Amino acid sequence: MKQITNFLIPILVGILIYLCPMPEGMDPRGWKLLAIFVSTIIALICKPLPMGAVALMSMAATVLTGTLKLEPEALGGYGSSVIWLVIYVFFIARGFIKTQLGTRIAFFFVKLFGRKSLGLGYSLAVTELLISPFIPSSAARAGGIMYPVVQAISESLDSHPDGKTNRRIGAFLNLVSYHGNLITSAMFLTGMAANPMMQSFAAAQGVTITWSNWALAAIVPGILSLVLIPLLIYILYPPTVKTFDNAVEIARLKLHEMGAMSRGEWIMTAIFAFMLVLWIFGESYGISSATTALLGLCLLLITKILTWDDILGEKEAWHTLIWFAILVMMAKYLQVFGVIAWFSNMVSGQVIGLDWGWAFGALVLIYYYSHYLFASNTSHVSAMYAAFLAVAIAAGAPPLLAALSLGFCSSLFSAMTHYGASSSAIFYGSGYIPIGTWWGIGFVISVANLLIWFGIGSAWWKVIGIW
Amino acid sequence: MKQITNFLIPILVGILIYLCPMPEGMDPRGWKLLAIFVSTIIALICKPLPMGAVALMSMAATVLTGTLKLEPEALGGYGSSVIWLVIYVFFIARGFIKTQLGTRIAFFFVKLFGRKSLGLGYSLAVTELLISPFIPSSAARAGGIMYPVVQAISESLDSHPDGKTNRRIGAFLNLVSYHGNLITSAMFLTGMAANPMMQSFAAAQGVTITWSNWALAAIVPGILSLVLIPLLIYILYPPTVKTFDNAVEIARLKLHEMGAMSRGEWIMTAIFAFMLVLWIFGESYGISSATTALLGLCLLLITKILTWDDILGEKEAWHTLIWFAILVMMAKYLQVFGVIAWFSNMVSGQVIGLDWGWAFGALVLIYYYSHYLFASNTSHVSAMYAAFLAVAIAAGAPPLLAALSLGFCSSLFSAMTHYGASSSAIFYGSGYIPIGTWWGIGFVISVANLLIWFGIGSAWWKVIGIW
Repeated sequence: MKQITNFLIPILVGILIYLCPMPEGMDPRGWKLLAIFVSTIIALICKPLPMGAVALMSMAATVLTGTLKLEPEALGGYGSSVIWLVIYVFFIARGFIKTQLGTRIAFFFVKLFGRKSLGLGYSLAVTELLISPFIPSSAARAGGIMYPVVQAISESLDSHPDGKTNRRIGAFLNLVSYHGNLITSAMFLTGMAANPMMQSFAAAQGVTITWSNWALAAIVPGILSLVLIPLLIYILYPPTVKTFDNAVEIARLKLHEMGAMSRGEWIMTAIFAFMLVLWIFGESYGISSATTALLGLCLLLITKILTWDDILGEKEAWHTLIWFAILVMMAKYLQVFGVIAWFSNMVSGQVIGLDWGWAFGALVLIYYYSHYLFASNTSHVSAMYAAFLAVAIAAGAPPLLAALSLGFCSSLFSAMTHYGASSSAIFYGSGYIPIGTWWGIGFVISVANLLIWFGIGSAWWKVIGIW
Repeated sequence: MKQITNFLIPILVGILIYLCPMPEGMDPRGWKLLAIFVSTIIALICKPLPMGAVALMSMAATVLTGTLKLEPEALGGYGSSVIWLVIYVFFIARGFIKTQLGTRIAFFFVKLFGRKSLGLGYSLAVTELLISPFIPSSAARAGGIMYPVVQAISESLDSHPDGKTNRRIGAFLNLVSYHGNLITSAMFLTGMAANPMMQSFAAAQGVTITWSNWALAAIVPGILSLVLIPLLIYILYPPTVKTFDNAVEIARLKLHEMGAMSRGEWIMTAIFAFMLVLWIFGESYGISSATTALLGLCLLLITKILTWDDILGEKEAWHTLIWFAILVMMAKYLQVFGVIAWFSNMVSGQVIGLDWGWAFGALVLIYYYSHYLFASNTSHVSAMYAAFLAVAIAAGAPPLLAALSLGFCSSLFSAMTHYGASSSAIFYGSGYIPIGTWWGIGFVISVANLLIWFGIGSAWWKVIGIW
């Protein structure tokens, strides 16, 4: 009975949206797609079936309703390099685990910070902070570096994604790392792939964003977020074990037992260092972060660190491939069919004429929460950033303030969903956190970040003369 | 040592091709891609690593050499509906196996024809013959209908893809079904997706192909092939068990034990019947064979015949996804970059001026064996059929003879490789036949088919007045 309801609710909502009077000038395919997209999101929450199955049905719905052609449209998401970057880093993470390099790094972390769960959380946030200025692909950072370490730490403290021990510490650490990833992505122009994109959009409107004015504006609210958000997660969704009395001792012992690094660990380290270098410097030579991950994966296969069977058995990667590609594809076509443009126009029509403070506040909120409709930062930025910046400036907002704060929002807004960025798919894919919790906590954190960045942040921006 | 050689040979061949003087006017990317493609094919045979790993490395090579962009080119194959049709039917086949409907059908076949291995082989060939006029997607026929039955029959006779019992009967039955699929694809205008395409290409050159003149011309060589090719496989690569003395009795007993059809079997039957109807009639309503398979898969998930975990654990499907998409993509860009056009021009330059018989023979042979470079019938047909038909007619070959015989070749030419058609990937994916054997027997069968179709066939075509 409950299951039938879970099936019916999303379908009914979809039909209701479809039956709403269509806005003038709207592409009918866009309207149908919006109905299917919203219905899909609700189904992901109601969960009549696992996420991958829901996504397949949504894709079937887009084809059967004549909204999208199967090829090249509906299946097009599977050709996206963003998707494959995520898949490749899932495989690479297996190399960390298999060689025990992940375990070694995990014990090392635990030895240093492991007495308190909160301490471990902060140590991860700091690690993110240290590497984020150098690795512009937040997905590579999340999946290639943090994800395997977080999983290894959780496992080493006997917390597994099994619905029983997941709350021990694993769920907490995954959430902290995820939100830490978003915050550090917002802090540096080089912390996320879409940031330089916004720099150029702003330049086209006469607003100069530099690496330093961005970092200067972000440093105070950013550090504050990195301090407060883990604490907030700790309070809202506490790890069931808060102090690991013997953990430091055990970690020391285990490290001793592990002895010197094995041949596999050395190879894994070398390949990892190679990827790190390419993730930092590769883009300027035309080597994208996904190409780097592909290369790393090939090296792991050539050196037999990973067998082909390891790859084929990596179920979480295949699951993510199916559902994430479909969501990314649908979000893309919402833009292609003009649904996002219609929405942006509607918003700008509403705010023009208001006092700039109110207008700007409304624009920020709408920009921020419309991310429920997007499955990637880059696509959200390319669809809405320039338009919203123009409206904000026209409404009288100080240009640099508008450009930077919309810029910060463009990473932070992924807090709410499990598909908002590639790193969401990765950490959600760990399996430690149920979807309802992910969304609930995500929403609270989205509000907290707004308060931090626009409460304290705007005072700081006044001090440094941005407005 | 041997393994290093297996790595080096393909790389050396690739470099050698690359260093050959490039034909005038050739796109340098085309030349590089040809080198990588040939090197990949050799690596698939040498097998320094499993096929999927080799394919990933080839893809990395195309990107690193600047031949293809990762997105949208190199990853583009993953958006192809041909690939996903194959993947979906792998999942659907799991439904046949899981519900035991496959086993029941298998025992039914064995009860009727199971005393002799050869008899079982023929029963499969006849089944293909009966359904091929109605299902224009040879991949749907192979993967959605024949593949699960063949696997179930093999398993029920205790032959598994394990390197020990595979030769009992499974390897034989898979090969017979595969080559049966190709022969029946060649026999009817509606037996393969690219056949109607050729009809329209021929029409553009003033040659009228109809369902009946195609079938009439094909019936004699087609039936002959269906009789002789299984026999040839039986002689070349005999099943180690040729007579199953108790099989009929055991099958009768097992069917009795199984009793009435279970609920799962009925659901599976209904969904299968639904797909069958859509595969036969759907195309005319714009429902492609891949969409039908997607729908069938969704229904199997909704009715819980398949769980999502069944999907994620279907390793052979994921393996095929990785390697097949990359080969299809590379073959496509050989055409896009003009390598195929250069080859076709070179050939037509050579044959013009010869006596029409010699010219036509050369054209047929080159058209046929150039399929080593292709990973789909449709792409081969769209790249070369019209050009070769024009040259043949210009050289003096009787137009209908040329149009039809190139048409027949367009299915039969997939005999040689394990990537030549979607059905190759499916039956090869069963794991019963090692790659060397697949290629060796494939080559012998390709010659046998040429002898049958152009030896006996051309006499028949004379009788019915095609030339």
